[in-house]
Amino acid sequence: MRAVQVVAYHEPVRVTDVPEPEIEAPDDVVVRIAGAGICRTDLHILQGELAEAFTPDLPYTLGHENAGWVHEVGPAVTTVRPGDPVIVHPAVTCGHCAGCRSGNDMHCGSWRFPGVDGWDGGYAELMRTTARALVKLPDGTNPTRLAPHADAGLTAIHAVKRLVPFTRPGATVVVIGFGGLGHLAIQLLREYTSAEVVVVDTSEERLRWAEEFGPDRTASSLDGLEADVVLDLVGEGDVPQRAMDVLRKGGLYSIVGYGGGVRLDHLDMINRELTVQGNQIGSHTDLVDLVELVRRDRVRLETTCFPLDDVEQAMHEVAEGKVLGRAVLVP
Amino acid sequence: MRAVQVVAYHEPVRVTDVPEPEIEAPDDVVVRIAGAGICRTDLHILQGELAEAFTPDLPYTLGHENAGWVHEVGPAVTTVRPGDPVIVHPAVTCGHCAGCRSGNDMHCGSWRFPGVDGWDGGYAELMRTTARALVKLPDGTNPTRLAPHADAGLTAIHAVKRLVPFTRPGATVVVIGFGGLGHLAIQLLREYTSAEVVVVDTSEERLRWAEEFGPDRTASSLDGLEADVVLDLVGEGDVPQRAMDVLRKGGLYSIVGYGGGVRLDHLDMINRELTVQGNQIGSHTDLVDLVELVRRDRVRLETTCFPLDDVEQAMHEVAEGKVLGRAVLVP
Amino acid sequence: MRAVQVVAYHEPVRVTDVPEPEIEAPDDVVVRIAGAGICRTDLHILQGELAEAFTPDLPYTLGHENAGWVHEVGPAVTTVRPGDPVIVHPAVTCGHCAGCRSGNDMHCGSWRFPGVDGWDGGYAELMRTTARALVKLPDGTNPTRLAPHADAGLTAIHAVKRLVPFTRPGATVVVIGFGGLGHLAIQLLREYTSAEVVVVDTSEERLRWAEEFGPDRTASSLDGLEADVVLDLVGEGDVPQRAMDVLRKGGLYSIVGYGGGVRLDHLDMINRELTVQGNQIGSHTDLVDLVELVRRDRVRLETTCFPLDDVEQAMHEVAEGKVLGRAVLVP
Amino acid sequence: MRAVQVVAYHEPVRVTDVPEPEIEAPDDVVVRIAGAGICRTDLHILQGELAEAFTPDLPYTLGHENAGWVHEVGPAVTTVRPGDPVIVHPAVTCGHCAGCRSGNDMHCGSWRFPGVDGWDGGYAELMRTTARALVKLPDGTNPTRLAPHADAGLTAIHAVKRLVPFTRPGATVVVIGFGGLGHLAIQLLREYTSAEVVVVDTSEERLRWAEEFGPDRTASSLDGLEADVVLDLVGEGDVPQRAMDVLRKGGLYSIVGYGGGVRLDHLDMINRELTVQGNQIGSHTDLVDLVELVRRDRVRLETTCFPLDDVEQAMHEVAEGKVLGRAVLVP
Repeated sequence: MRAVQVVAYHEPVRVTDVPEPEIEAPDDVVVRIAGAGICRTDLHILQGELAEAFTPDLPYTLGHENAGWVHEVGPAVTTVRPGDPVIVHPAVTCGHCAGCRSGNDMHCGSWRFPGVDGWDGGYAELMRTTARALVKLPDGTNPTRLAPHADAGLTAIHAVKRLVPFTRPGATVVVIGFGGLGHLAIQLLREYTSAEVVVVDTSEERLRWAEEFGPDRTASSLDGLEADVVLDLVGEGDVPQRAMDVLRKGGLYSIVGYGGGVRLDHLDMINRELTVQGNQIGSHTDLVDLVELVRRDRVRLETTCFPLDDVEQAMHEVAEGKVLGRAVLVP
Repeated sequence: MRAVQVVAYHEPVRVTDVPEPEIEAPDDVVVRIAGAGICRTDLHILQGELAEAFTPDLPYTLGHENAGWVHEVGPAVTTVRPGDPVIVHPAVTCGHCAGCRSGNDMHCGSWRFPGVDGWDGGYAELMRTTARALVKLPDGTNPTRLAPHADAGLTAIHAVKRLVPFTRPGATVVVIGFGGLGHLAIQLLREYTSAEVVVVDTSEERLRWAEEFGPDRTASSLDGLEADVVLDLVGEGDVPQRAMDVLRKGGLYSIVGYGGGVRLDHLDMINRELTVQGNQIGSHTDLVDLVELVRRDRVRLETTCFPLDDVEQAMHEVAEGKVLGRAVLVP
Repeated sequence: MRAVQVVAYHEPVRVTDVPEPEIEAPDDVVVRIAGAGICRTDLHILQGELAEAFTPDLPYTLGHENAGWVHEVGPAVTTVRPGDPVIVHPAVTCGHCAGCRSGNDMHCGSWRFPGVDGWDGGYAELMRTTARALVKLPDGTNPTRLAPHADAGLTAIHAVKRLVPFTRPGATVVVIGFGGLGHLAIQLLREYTSAEVVVVDTSEERLRWAEEFGPDRTASSLDGLEADVVLDLVGEGDVPQRAMDVLRKGGLYSIVGYGGGVRLDHLDMINRELTVQGNQIGSHTDLVDLVELVRRDRVRLETTCFPLDDVEQAMHEVAEGKVLGRAVLVP
Repeated sequence: MRAVQVVAYHEPVRVTDVPEPEIEAPDDVVVRIAGAGICRTDLHILQGELAEAFTPDLPYTLGHENAGWVHEVGPAVTTVRPGDPVIVHPAVTCGHCAGCRSGNDMHCGSWRFPGVDGWDGGYAELMRTTARALVKLPDGTNPTRLAPHADAGLTAIHAVKRLVPFTRPGATVVVIGFGGLGHLAIQLLREYTSAEVVVVDTSEERLRWAEEFGPDRTASSLDGLEADVVLDLVGEGDVPQRAMDVLRKGGLYSIVGYGGGVRLDHLDMINRELTVQGNQIGSHTDLVDLVELVRRDRVRLETTCFPLDDVEQAMHEVAEGKVLGRAVLVP
């Protein structure tokens, strides 16, 4: 089958033919990919930026944002059947550790991260995962354009749920960066909070697009803003430091974007009693909740589809910020 | 009356005679000081380190950790009477803002901080505060040696309550620095959590003292430790960075000590899904809870008393780390 | 001034002239009433049903759902000025007890309840309360038609906030009874939860009205329903028992309406692990949140105004269920 | 093998020989029973009181409070090995539903309840369960006398965790009934709260026993008590009604014992803003936490052992209240 692989860092991906994945364990499921979202993390991977954290063996197939139909199931699988439309939680988890048992499966001590840690991902016709990772979509759903919910949406809903205790009606949440995650985050903030939402982006085009989603305000910089929460979807350059600066007493700096860092001053952390949170992907339960919100039209996703073989062009457009919303590869 | 004032930064305090404070507003209360704790913050103040954050006019009377007896009350005061033993919450708050109305009076937008922001504190025979700041002690209590609960204890209980959600039986909480706050923190951790508590201090004498309080383990460095929570009572030098390094996935770095800082790497914050919290003083409700725990002998405080006129000697011993527990000035 | 008083149980109210209220304590405020909502509690009061719980001395002025403008303030009042538009929290609270200090002022041990416990209420031109009870409305607001938020809205937002932990996207909340509280509750459920909302009422006219507020479903009875939460705004007859019957495992029966009761079977409470909650009025903070939601057009209130002198006619229409939404007396 | 079965309601149990259980599904585990606790629920079962709720086919083997050693594992089991000492969570759950995925496995929609719903329980030499139900004990542990933690301890820790938000230092928790659950509950209340604990029991002998566990007070009736929380381990006769009566404003009535019921008055539920909670068994995570507390000697369990063949005598003594603590059958 066709697949897109990372073969070496600082080199382009390779579109190639690889063997089809097979059921290896009783709980395994092979999914026929309908769509695989392109994430900035894929760009970071190609630059080798995640090599230290995840130590994958090369080559392997990219793609951690997947949706499709169940193709084949292992003998112990009872929750899905071939043909079911599904969205694929990005983590393969054990189901037995403290994290898995308490609803925080993304903290599973023995998790695997297909498409990132060397387990073959979904930039392919077929992908192997386990039954625990799947969330069924309503019968008849076309999964293709929902794929980005598996990571972009999942991360957004997770971060938004965690910031709720820092908000109340009239609180200000500043969202920095309005792209694939941003347009989901603003809808989820409306769903989960009654806060005023301010969208900050340096691109006028993106701010115009943001207006479609009803923010209370848009701004091209953080100058003059005050916030109870900053949701930072950029996480690079001087953004983190400036994000911290606009927080009110008791405020939260919520980190989703990465690439950079920030220096905390302890006296300031204490005097303003600030909290800083890193946000991983969400839990399986977060994904179930998100799928329900999608089913009820509370969250819509802007996508642009590319054939799998056009992956280089697609990644280039993502890198250049030319894709409004989220790019999806279609095998 | 006698009072200890800061007259200039980088100079010794001055022990002098000043006019007695008087009732100025209907809710005012003048407290006859039984004891005034010496806090490392007082040392920071004398070095000018809080001048920017609190902009006090000099000279003014130090002392934000006070207990005594009600001396005189304003015409609107109904909750205490002259002679009542009281402990003094360090903040003077408005009672009407969102912070005050929701139990977070330390977030009061118009708060005053006697002994720190230029409002005269409790290194004196008498001190003016307001009725809202007082917590009555049981009749007949001698307030002298309870004074440090007004800040050291209050900060410890506040930080400990906030870290509870990051613990469960068997979780590891590492406390860095075992002094006045540390010996209270370990008792409060036992009261509020079922975590294993590891005390880290570079002083062997302090670690021996820590053993009296039943830690699960003591250590002279962070080497080889893993923690779900680090409660950092030091906050300087390389401690913050090393504290972050020992955190497990989903862990909390809880900041109480200050003077230094730490650089966060966003990718790491996300991958380990870490939280960093600054902790201010606690709320009035926190102080009420602490007083109840003291009444029930769940928390004991180690103190050394000094006459008010010996303040320089006392501060010197605090600076040198010679006082086990907390130093208290007695007017 | 004109006022509407309860003079004896099981008798009509009396519209009469009474002396104007005066500032009695430093924190008192006299409010010029713009509107005073009529609540079913007023009907219960006239039947003597609250006599045992609140033991008021008769006669006194009814009205616990009030809004208007500040008319006169006591010498200690700093938070409002004459002319300010305000909504009046129904409770007069002390500000010092554990309830008040922790944001649950409705649990104040020495609270007063004007219009209910014998303290004169707002069915009058002027009413005395205290500064702590007031929430300022945005400058220029006409308070008249907002009055019902002081009790109907306040109770609804309080109950809705408390049921949030029992919901998630796709959970079912059944609201029983669609009147003054019901039409607010459905809007607040949309604001605070992502649950499916089912409105149950025996009146077809009320169900048609409910459709304007976008419920997921309406029904004329509880037959065949299943619910994670039942919000019971009726609380009489066989409604409570049937409400309990439709709950799923882990479900919540949330009580707002009263007059009746329900028998719990302990084995069933355990097997389904049910929770039953009584809901009082909300806190001052709840009222601040509600005012903010009103300001942002997230909640709209349907009202019908009556001149104060037509109070008997207005109460009759409320008793008959003829008023869609909430009736407001205008002095 | 030997087993104790319920053959008909209102008849004695039958001690008999039955075939050994076998692995039926890939995740199955057969446990060699070291001890099986006798629970009042077993007495209720024999009276047919749970027949309607659980509809078991007779005969089947009793026993839902079990500990032992892993005897045999199915092919998909990776978390335990033959010989491991284990305690057996009483529910067999699916691992995939919303309850299981969010840490509330006792709300699993397709759960089974061995020893209660017709699935053979642990009054036997061997018992079949699944890997998900097991919690490993520290190597070398003798599981026999820990068996009652599987239900009595599990229910107690679950109920105690859920009442924590209703307490603070100085709050009063009244525990009604001091037996097997009671002596665990008081230790867990000390571990999880800083409340004052009052033990109420009609037996002087049991109150004397209670004194060993350091209650703040014991009492032979509820007369004159006030409580923020009542933890009712009896749940029959006039206890529930009287339990409700002693609650303070905002209080919680927490139900564990059953057999009876209580009538709620809605006006009273609202005026005192009371909460009533039914408590099922706890989650798997609760059991892990409890095992950790046992390991750290924070909870000790009083047990009396009986040979399996003496089950009738043992059940008789339990029914008569003659066993201090908890009775354990040893095969």
